[in-house]
Amino acid sequence: MSFNTFGKVFRFTTWGESHGPAIGCVVDGCPPNIALSEKDIQADLNLRKPGQSKFTTQRKEKDLVKILSGVFEGKTTGTPISLIIYNEDMKSKDYGNIKNKFRPGHADFTYFKKYGIRDYRGGGRSSARETASRVAAGAIAKKVLKQFIGSKFSIIGGVTQIGPVFINRDNWNDSQIRKNPFFCPDKEIVSMFEEYLLDTRKRGSSCGAMIELRAKGIPIGLGAPIYSKLDADIAAALMSINAVKSVNIGAGSDVAALTGEMNSDEIRSKNGKIKFKTNNAGGILGGISSGQDIICSFAVKPTSSILNTRETINTSGKNTKISVHGRHDPCVGIRAVPIGEAMLACVLLDHYLMNRAQCG
Amino acid sequence: MSFNTFGKVFRFTTWGESHGPAIGCVVDGCPPNIALSEKDIQADLNLRKPGQSKFTTQRKEKDLVKILSGVFEGKTTGTPISLIIYNEDMKSKDYGNIKNKFRPGHADFTYFKKYGIRDYRGGGRSSARETASRVAAGAIAKKVLKQFIGSKFSIIGGVTQIGPVFINRDNWNDSQIRKNPFFCPDKEIVSMFEEYLLDTRKRGSSCGAMIELRAKGIPIGLGAPIYSKLDADIAAALMSINAVKSVNIGAGSDVAALTGEMNSDEIRSKNGKIKFKTNNAGGILGGISSGQDIICSFAVKPTSSILNTRETINTSGKNTKISVHGRHDPCVGIRAVPIGEAMLACVLLDHYLMNRAQCG
Amino acid sequence: MSFNTFGKVFRFTTWGESHGPAIGCVVDGCPPNIALSEKDIQADLNLRKPGQSKFTTQRKEKDLVKILSGVFEGKTTGTPISLIIYNEDMKSKDYGNIKNKFRPGHADFTYFKKYGIRDYRGGGRSSARETASRVAAGAIAKKVLKQFIGSKFSIIGGVTQIGPVFINRDNWNDSQIRKNPFFCPDKEIVSMFEEYLLDTRKRGSSCGAMIELRAKGIPIGLGAPIYSKLDADIAAALMSINAVKSVNIGAGSDVAALTGEMNSDEIRSKNGKIKFKTNNAGGILGGISSGQDIICSFAVKPTSSILNTRETINTSGKNTKISVHGRHDPCVGIRAVPIGEAMLACVLLDHYLMNRAQCG
Amino acid sequence: MSFNTFGKVFRFTTWGESHGPAIGCVVDGCPPNIALSEKDIQADLNLRKPGQSKFTTQRKEKDLVKILSGVFEGKTTGTPISLIIYNEDMKSKDYGNIKNKFRPGHADFTYFKKYGIRDYRGGGRSSARETASRVAAGAIAKKVLKQFIGSKFSIIGGVTQIGPVFINRDNWNDSQIRKNPFFCPDKEIVSMFEEYLLDTRKRGSSCGAMIELRAKGIPIGLGAPIYSKLDADIAAALMSINAVKSVNIGAGSDVAALTGEMNSDEIRSKNGKIKFKTNNAGGILGGISSGQDIICSFAVKPTSSILNTRETINTSGKNTKISVHGRHDPCVGIRAVPIGEAMLACVLLDHYLMNRAQCG
Repeated sequence: MSFNTFGKVFRFTTWGESHGPAIGCVVDGCPPNIALSEKDIQADLNLRKPGQSKFTTQRKEKDLVKILSGVFEGKTTGTPISLIIYNEDMKSKDYGNIKNKFRPGHADFTYFKKYGIRDYRGGGRSSARETASRVAAGAIAKKVLKQFIGSKFSIIGGVTQIGPVFINRDNWNDSQIRKNPFFCPDKEIVSMFEEYLLDTRKRGSSCGAMIELRAKGIPIGLGAPIYSKLDADIAAALMSINAVKSVNIGAGSDVAALTGEMNSDEIRSKNGKIKFKTNNAGGILGGISSGQDIICSFAVKPTSSILNTRETINTSGKNTKISVHGRHDPCVGIRAVPIGEAMLACVLLDHYLMNRAQCG
Repeated sequence: MSFNTFGKVFRFTTWGESHGPAIGCVVDGCPPNIALSEKDIQADLNLRKPGQSKFTTQRKEKDLVKILSGVFEGKTTGTPISLIIYNEDMKSKDYGNIKNKFRPGHADFTYFKKYGIRDYRGGGRSSARETASRVAAGAIAKKVLKQFIGSKFSIIGGVTQIGPVFINRDNWNDSQIRKNPFFCPDKEIVSMFEEYLLDTRKRGSSCGAMIELRAKGIPIGLGAPIYSKLDADIAAALMSINAVKSVNIGAGSDVAALTGEMNSDEIRSKNGKIKFKTNNAGGILGGISSGQDIICSFAVKPTSSILNTRETINTSGKNTKISVHGRHDPCVGIRAVPIGEAMLACVLLDHYLMNRAQCG
Repeated sequence: MSFNTFGKVFRFTTWGESHGPAIGCVVDGCPPNIALSEKDIQADLNLRKPGQSKFTTQRKEKDLVKILSGVFEGKTTGTPISLIIYNEDMKSKDYGNIKNKFRPGHADFTYFKKYGIRDYRGGGRSSARETASRVAAGAIAKKVLKQFIGSKFSIIGGVTQIGPVFINRDNWNDSQIRKNPFFCPDKEIVSMFEEYLLDTRKRGSSCGAMIELRAKGIPIGLGAPIYSKLDADIAAALMSINAVKSVNIGAGSDVAALTGEMNSDEIRSKNGKIKFKTNNAGGILGGISSGQDIICSFAVKPTSSILNTRETINTSGKNTKISVHGRHDPCVGIRAVPIGEAMLACVLLDHYLMNRAQCG
Repeated sequence: MSFNTFGKVFRFTTWGESHGPAIGCVVDGCPPNIALSEKDIQADLNLRKPGQSKFTTQRKEKDLVKILSGVFEGKTTGTPISLIIYNEDMKSKDYGNIKNKFRPGHADFTYFKKYGIRDYRGGGRSSARETASRVAAGAIAKKVLKQFIGSKFSIIGGVTQIGPVFINRDNWNDSQIRKNPFFCPDKEIVSMFEEYLLDTRKRGSSCGAMIELRAKGIPIGLGAPIYSKLDADIAAALMSINAVKSVNIGAGSDVAALTGEMNSDEIRSKNGKIKFKTNNAGGILGGISSGQDIICSFAVKPTSSILNTRETINTSGKNTKISVHGRHDPCVGIRAVPIGEAMLACVLLDHYLMNRAQCG
């Protein structure tokens, strides 16, 4: 029972509110003797950082990470790694006018009812600012996995849908993803994403998105029956990201419409190498990795903070209206890409270590 | 780190293989002084039991549950409740011809590679037979929730899609669900489900399904930031069910195409009662229950064991073919309904108790 | 948070009451491909079994264990191992006259107050009968450790004190332990133990005992900072045994009277082999095994069920008296030896697997 | 499986090395709406702080704590409380001459062998400096317990033995404890403690100690069968403190020499109030609190860092000698008093919340 800790062997505990002095996390269970520096982590943080393009929030945060423990002379020591990121852009006066209103779609209402108290400044603990800690933990997980698995290991995520605009998955190209501000793997779609987002912002509205993650080089055997299935842990990891409402593994919800022949991936052996003819399973069979690419996706709801007026109630239970000004992402799904990658990396490393525990 | 245990306060640990002498589970953390008998549990087990209609496997299992501990003079004592279900229909000779082949879509390949050994009889531990234990644990969870919450509490699940056939969600009628062999809540669609399934079986094939779960009467405040979110735990719970490839909360993957106005549920107060105008959130905001109905759904892939011949390899890595005879469900999604209900009940009770721990 | 589960990777969950139909446990996380049969487990159970000599309870229990899952064709499969032991000697009428009285020194009072209900037959869940499950789990742990470490691994426990009678620790001889009914490692003391126990029983009384455990062949590096220290986990494991009130590691409470020179074990290297000159640390430094023998001890209080009349209250809070007839061990400490061995084996295996997880 | 986290509901995760930039902890699961300020925590930290008298280390640390999250407008919010204490006195050059030697009695050897790397400056992670974090977490636990239980709740610890000098437990007087630099509850013994310690330091040596803890006002029903027994968790908590080698509950190891009549505490009722005639059980029966005072004690070994020369080996496995200069406590047991109090407070709160979860 742990409210703010993720993982079983490779565990991280995050803390901090959006408008407190700092946020951070403690990473426990990291194997020793892994080369690690703040630069390794910063690189990933910069992908999530606000203000990177005109399509994300203009909130100014450098998101500079500091390592406070667990690394000695450039290497992990096996003891807990404490990371801290100071908050800089803490204009809490911004929130004065809405502090007593529950923003629809946000956690304001449920936090207040559950705890009888909440830090109303920018969502407090429920703010997506917490996800910077996840990205930092994920950067460490990736470094470990790279050292253990080698160069064939990779994790990459891309935005496959924004509002009504879809990519063509056959056009997925890893090398495109970092070349546009949408993490879009399909070059042909970038301008449509752009157009739709500009229009969305102009309308004072927001839009949802779908993100797909792909992990390569994952060994066979990660995962476990029955309640530590790899896919179940991925589902929990992705669903725990702010605003996520759907998680799919492999063919995902499409399987409902398939037949057994279409769905089950046939297996072939050639020159001692095992190949599956398709990958509807998303690289996971019976909760255990099969050696195929791990494929999963998740849907992110539209940013709940919008300029357009919405009906709501206040903390006294009175009806009122709200319009959320400020510097919000029109599509929070975009910045969810590095977060999803980080969470997937953490789950995979966690299962790598768990498998080592039981199976050597 | 627990491979075969589910839950944090209300925990159950399942054990057993499809063709061993018995299966069962140990339920720990159940509150004391709850009236409980084998009959309470049996009622739910009978919903999942094979052979209930011509649309499910004809394997004969009475699935009679016995309580071995934790109940004294008709009431729970707060100590672990051990449940056992003896296996009756253990024709392990059935499996002789396929014991060295990996059935595509099944866990045969991954179990063998992970552990270097597996009980090949009917899937062994990876068989969906394990889910009988979940239904039993779920029956206990429901009894506790009913005692704590009262009559306004309910959980019901229905099949909303089989292959290409969908229900009309506006026609959902709880009272229809137990009246047809498909747990179909839309009377108009029952005959189409029937027709499609008969055809599927005739073709030696199988099909997928989509199941929706609805829980009513759930108090505000269940769930927790950040890594014990109610929706994240529901996602893990449902994704851990055999053959599930997708989990949705509320509007689910549809949120990707919505705008902020369409998605975020406005809040109204009337005569002191709080009402949300819509329920795209599925009753969960920021990982915490909002008092609305909890709505979630999951997709089940088509039964992987089909009569039609499929390509595969054997345990020596040689190419071969396989055709799985025997008594398989053409659509395993149907019997997943009581399993999904059970898992949802367990998650909700678990969070009910967790909330009591932290918030009194 | 798990009330009835022990361990982190190698975990066992026990269930059952002294006068229910059966007791048992589920062992999860056991590595695959370990040869295991009921005979392996039965051998250890027989050491704990009641009625083995006139110095232990004459309750008749064969304590025959059955494996219900997790073992296939003589080997563990990596899936949960379910063990069951049927209760035979369930004369619950014996308990009629004391069912409403709280036996001093027993858990009757606290269980009743905590849960508002209890199975009063023979202590129910709080009976030391539960420890049979621990011995069974421990037998599995020992088999795994033997396979991993080889023949240099061993665990042995001995009774070093009964009431006022002490052994001379310099006379400790492993091979004597199984040759007398007291697990006494010092041949010279056996007859004094016997005499004292016979006298104790004649007086309708009971007596305490001290048990020492020694594990050999344990690799360096088991344990972890800060809250999974090997010694902390041993302390919890031993203190969780019924009637234990003290746990010592190495020199134990004697360290309070030592000087730094006397206590800290000097280290020497000879021909590439590292040797400590003494072992006051009990083989554990900073919570991590040092390669020396693991030495620990625990004190067991006198059997609380005695013939001599004691003052107490009943469930209505009225003053009354109690005299507990029946077949009780005059010194429960004796049968605690195999239980202590089992718990130590489980802790060591658990840390062996945990170390594999983090450090490979 | 958590290496650096303590607790189940009220959990804290500590991080930091003795000579890194800071140490700290994250407290998760703290109930909301508890008044909490840095001052509350600082008061307890000051009790443990080095340099308070000539009988403890002269290392200069202000140990000023800062709250980084989880408290809003003076009250806990139910979200994680992050605490940080900056290290000031980091003379890591002090350690140059011993960096390649394993100090006998310290964790140097085992950390190096386990992880293949270690922060050798002052023990790094294995330094007792980590215990400042425990004291901080304990201060929070005490505040919560006081709010829940009221003024009848208290925890106090005292040193009952230093080297060969014992207090008379009948002279125990709570009000004396804070009046002398030894946390000695027996006024008569203070000067003997002083004399012995001065002599010990003059000899370049160190000495062990015994500490006793007493908690009052604890409700009946905290604890749980079988593997979350209150006494087992106390044992783990105290044994996890640096240098502790023995833990006793109530009469502790003395029970080995008692008879059943002497040991089991008789129960009486008078005017509706239940009273035990003695408290050999230390307030815990069957792992559950009985409403009596919780009494436990632990032995702390002599400081391993002593001036007198000791034999050891270096990291290359060569024989060498070591003499540890610097500012070390002659008796680390003294400063263990506030640490023991803190750990006991954390265990009690944790079980208070766990009991609330299962039993309401």
